[in-house]
Amino acid sequence: MQITEKIQQMARQSRVAANAMLSATAGERQKALSAIAEVIENNVNHIVAANAADLKNGEAKQLSPALLDRLALTPQRIAGMVKGVRQVAEQPDPIGTITDLAVQPRGFKVGKMRTPIGVIGIVYESRPNVTVDAAAICLKSGNACILRGGSEAFHSNRILVDLMQTALQTTALDTNIIQFVDTTDREAVTAMLEAVGLIDVMIPRGGKSLVKLISDKAKVPVIKHLDGICHVYIDEFARDKMAVDVAFNAKTYRYGICGAMETLLIHQRKLDSVLPELIEKYRQKGVELLADKHIAERYDLPLASAEDWASEYLAAKLSIKSVDSLKQAIDHINTYGSHHTDAIITDNLTHQNEFLALVDSASVMVNTATCFADGFEYGLGAEIGISTDKLHVRGPVGVLGLTTEKMIILGNGEIRS
Amino acid sequence: MQITEKIQQMARQSRVAANAMLSATAGERQKALSAIAEVIENNVNHIVAANAADLKNGEAKQLSPALLDRLALTPQRIAGMVKGVRQVAEQPDPIGTITDLAVQPRGFKVGKMRTPIGVIGIVYESRPNVTVDAAAICLKSGNACILRGGSEAFHSNRILVDLMQTALQTTALDTNIIQFVDTTDREAVTAMLEAVGLIDVMIPRGGKSLVKLISDKAKVPVIKHLDGICHVYIDEFARDKMAVDVAFNAKTYRYGICGAMETLLIHQRKLDSVLPELIEKYRQKGVELLADKHIAERYDLPLASAEDWASEYLAAKLSIKSVDSLKQAIDHINTYGSHHTDAIITDNLTHQNEFLALVDSASVMVNTATCFADGFEYGLGAEIGISTDKLHVRGPVGVLGLTTEKMIILGNGEIRS
Repeated sequence: MQITEKIQQMARQSRVAANAMLSATAGERQKALSAIAEVIENNVNHIVAANAADLKNGEAKQLSPALLDRLALTPQRIAGMVKGVRQVAEQPDPIGTITDLAVQPRGFKVGKMRTPIGVIGIVYESRPNVTVDAAAICLKSGNACILRGGSEAFHSNRILVDLMQTALQTTALDTNIIQFVDTTDREAVTAMLEAVGLIDVMIPRGGKSLVKLISDKAKVPVIKHLDGICHVYIDEFARDKMAVDVAFNAKTYRYGICGAMETLLIHQRKLDSVLPELIEKYRQKGVELLADKHIAERYDLPLASAEDWASEYLAAKLSIKSVDSLKQAIDHINTYGSHHTDAIITDNLTHQNEFLALVDSASVMVNTATCFADGFEYGLGAEIGISTDKLHVRGPVGVLGLTTEKMIILGNGEIRS
Repeated sequence: MQITEKIQQMARQSRVAANAMLSATAGERQKALSAIAEVIENNVNHIVAANAADLKNGEAKQLSPALLDRLALTPQRIAGMVKGVRQVAEQPDPIGTITDLAVQPRGFKVGKMRTPIGVIGIVYESRPNVTVDAAAICLKSGNACILRGGSEAFHSNRILVDLMQTALQTTALDTNIIQFVDTTDREAVTAMLEAVGLIDVMIPRGGKSLVKLISDKAKVPVIKHLDGICHVYIDEFARDKMAVDVAFNAKTYRYGICGAMETLLIHQRKLDSVLPELIEKYRQKGVELLADKHIAERYDLPLASAEDWASEYLAAKLSIKSVDSLKQAIDHINTYGSHHTDAIITDNLTHQNEFLALVDSASVMVNTATCFADGFEYGLGAEIGISTDKLHVRGPVGVLGLTTEKMIILGNGEIRS
């Protein structure tokens, strides 16, 4: 069978499974997740063995140590996956929730009912834990998923899906709610991206080049995360100590996360009271600093280029810019940022409100660090990624982000004249 | 200047205007809409004159009478447009609404704030009233819009936009929040569809071929309405009179609207008590009937083909199918329908609940007619279309559908360790 046909047939099976899932209760979804956690827990040795095959291939292919580390599944990491599935199982279940049910002039009531999206395609890179995380969130939200992992993790992904399907066999649910694309051929991804009407949404998880490829080629809707060019703006009305602590934390908590601050904006009036201490702390931590002309001259720092303001370093590197006003800070963020997560440090209420209203980002923060951009921290539970899109869902995409609302109209024989 | 560059430049101006709009108050948006209504009201003669030029060109091009009728702007129709703008002005304003603000374990509060989407591109066909309707809804929701109307209505659209911009000059708002693509070159549409990062969403309004073209070619997200293959299912527990009234109304209220029923599903047990009267009423009204084998033989009707079940007639034509069970009805709707609007007639609570949960459509109705699928009827106010997409917004797309929510995080110096 051609790969395209095969993907389409899989997607049709997923649709049947997704439609059947609409009859499942919250309890059945929860039980299925518990069953999955248990089966994985009982098969740690098998998973480690399959993973060893991937690691061996990876070594032969001379993958980088960082990549090999991401690929590795230790008993401890597997325990973490299992814990994650149990957490998802215990989250509140949003499916079937009815809101805003109000009587309209014609007599009928109109409201919204939360439902699964349907069939979700997930394309990801080498981390095999995504296989379980993604499947769990899709299952909790009542969706069927089609998983396409990176070729490096093929054996690990394969056994994880097999185990999850084994678990599903003990439940009332269709095992096709979790399907796995068992070819590493790139054509399979293209077929998924073009399966309009068969796959409802595609979610890429991985580096920028993967996400760009997916969103450029996709004919089906995509929920995606692109850059995380996050800013902290130290307002003239910031408390000095808080400004230092938050700006230091936002950069140095972890360099590689999308919520890490990449540019620090600081009001002119704070250059003396805040910046010397901050620069000293960054230097001690080994953070490379670049700055605009004004700050660069004052602190003997290299000049940031136009490119720097639009860069996601994901490294121990930071560009610093002085601004004259709140407006200038907001303009800079909306122009050079990536609409991900941006924070203001201020004690001024008007400045807080303007920043919240005018910064066009998925997450807008006041007096806390951008590195908190995370589904768990927001109380949304496990996440499948962080959306920098503007439609459907912004910020961490958890169970709720994988649902949609339909209109329900409850009448008593009304007709239109 | 190349058309593509010109569109991109327009979109950049729209972005500036959209960002400035974020500072505007609800009162300023409302005042701007009132100013628009007034200027249009005071320029009826100019509009009719410009429209006459379009009508003359249309006659020369031998457009169909139906098309010429859609194109025509009479003083009465203009009054209708003005009334529509005033209605939009008076709708509740959702921008800035904060919901779900809850304290999280770290100490900060996390909630959602409703904001405009940003820059909205609208591509539409010959109806010039869309120019004003669309601009009003975009303005109310705080968005900037770029309008691209059909070539047949060029002069009418041009003057309507000029008048709206004249009105905006009397307000605090940037006149670029309403822009008009003043070329009928198709390349302009392509440039809009590819303006990733410049235009946030494209909305096609028009026939199926336009919508298909837009969604096939778009690189930016699209909110769209495709088919309206709507069903009414008469359940075995329906009240007979209600079943007859609603099924008749759903087909005959108006044939050309997307909420018109195209297929009637009827439970076997209702064939005797409901169908004879209904068929008689349809025949008297001149509705052409097709049916499945069972009903066709019984009532001497032509057989419906597989194609009929997937057809949006938009005409005095109806296909009728008998089913053995609720499940069969739901399967038929999910298989052949267009996920637009589908209704059940029943007095059985379990059947109602199953229908609501399992029918995968933007609007799911109980005991009322599919022709009610409309923003005003739902209490959502004016609509820019009806979405059959699954993400972001389903059903009538009004002011709320053109907004999005960002996450807001209000802290007090929390840092992550």
